[in-house]
Amino acid sequence: MHIISQQGYIQQVSIHCVIFGYQDKQLKVLVPKLHFQGDFWALPSGFVYQDEDTDEAAKRILEDRTGIKDVYLESFKTMGKASRNSRNFLDRLIELNPNTLDDETKRREYEWFTRRFIGIGYYALVDLNNVVAQKNEIDESIEWYPVNAIPQMIMDHNQLVDEAIESLRADLDRKRVAFHLLPETFTMKEVQELYETILEKSFAANNFPKRVLELNVLERLKKKFTGAANKAPYLYRFPKQNESSVKN
Amino acid sequence: MHIISQQGYIQQVSIHCVIFGYQDKQLKVLVPKLHFQGDFWALPSGFVYQDEDTDEAAKRILEDRTGIKDVYLESFKTMGKASRNSRNFLDRLIELNPNTLDDETKRREYEWFTRRFIGIGYYALVDLNNVVAQKNEIDESIEWYPVNAIPQMIMDHNQLVDEAIESLRADLDRKRVAFHLLPETFTMKEVQELYETILEKSFAANNFPKRVLELNVLERLKKKFTGAANKAPYLYRFPKQNESSVKN
Repeated sequence: MHIISQQGYIQQVSIHCVIFGYQDKQLKVLVPKLHFQGDFWALPSGFVYQDEDTDEAAKRILEDRTGIKDVYLESFKTMGKASRNSRNFLDRLIELNPNTLDDETKRREYEWFTRRFIGIGYYALVDLNNVVAQKNEIDESIEWYPVNAIPQMIMDHNQLVDEAIESLRADLDRKRVAFHLLPETFTMKEVQELYETILEKSFAANNFPKRVLELNVLERLKKKFTGAANKAPYLYRFPKQNESSVKN
Repeated sequence: MHIISQQGYIQQVSIHCVIFGYQDKQLKVLVPKLHFQGDFWALPSGFVYQDEDTDEAAKRILEDRTGIKDVYLESFKTMGKASRNSRNFLDRLIELNPNTLDDETKRREYEWFTRRFIGIGYYALVDLNNVVAQKNEIDESIEWYPVNAIPQMIMDHNQLVDEAIESLRADLDRKRVAFHLLPETFTMKEVQELYETILEKSFAANNFPKRVLELNVLERLKKKFTGAANKAPYLYRFPKQNESSVKN
């Protein structure tokens, strides 16, 4: 088990991060695999210091586990079942990694880790091409998985991803969040493909650009040079500072 | 201060309920006023027992404080600022009610109550005509306020109401929640008025019914008798068991 200071944390509250990226017309999630015997995948997760906003805790956990910082974050769901704990996961981990509980400190950690935790789910939106994900010392690897091919994770982490996707869909128009998944500049066709991927439906090409431009959040740049001038699409840019990241 | 057992609660997690009703074409919120000197309004709030789902805690708090049970509930926001505590509120309360801290038990309660709490916000949707709100022993009164005329409440409770309204708007189509605010039977015109009230915009009367009926959740009943048969509107019913209440 990873040695972690239990001092200074709020008791029985945990943070879980669903990191969305977009690549090859697929919505993907970044999932680390733990460096223990047994195939344990888990969302980047952690706890909240007493003097720390939950939003700040989410940012810290995200950066510690993935090297990613300054991303768009939304808290989307709080998991509050009384039965929510990691006992099954940790017992299985210890069974496969018998040295894990070999001293008193680690046994105390086991007690702490296996209590009930109320889990606050955050989703993060990143430009996948721009981030270099880094595993930290508790991870064996970290990879992007298409949302329909995510490995079986510990506890309710797969359910958290499902809830995050549902919230992302609901937030698409209301909070204009989708642009955070795109590179610095993009065409309207790329925006439409992104919306179609996330919402799993098609939009009429003659209507979609109008709807998006009505949001009044995109800057139109010069035309993309393709050689065939009259068909060159406009490039757009989303000034990210317009959209405040996590607020509480 | 109200004597409350601190035993058995999850530490530093609180629950806050925004109870929505609909009356006279106004969206309203049920707000109790505390029975202390000073005008203290506060959302029905409480804590979570160790063996209790947060959803169950919200139901219990709602019933204890208002007499209302079996309502539609959604958790909509978790407030996680490190600075979030009720010290200002309680210090003012004690200033105006000097006997409040007159024994050791109450002083220990003060310490407990004034720590940082992560607050989970739930909204409830009720048929206002059907509920008889009851104040409990810590309340002086309990009243329905139009959302634009809610008194200044303690802590961040007004902000919680604002966040709840934003979530209710986003959930209107996605989760078909609005019908929980209507009486057992209603006309399409009443549904439209409700949507227009919550979303603060108008819909074309020729398009709205189609959109609502496409949700495929309403039962059409016999025509309402008005004397002028050809103008009598249809009555509709929303089978509430179709929609699961809180799930986690």
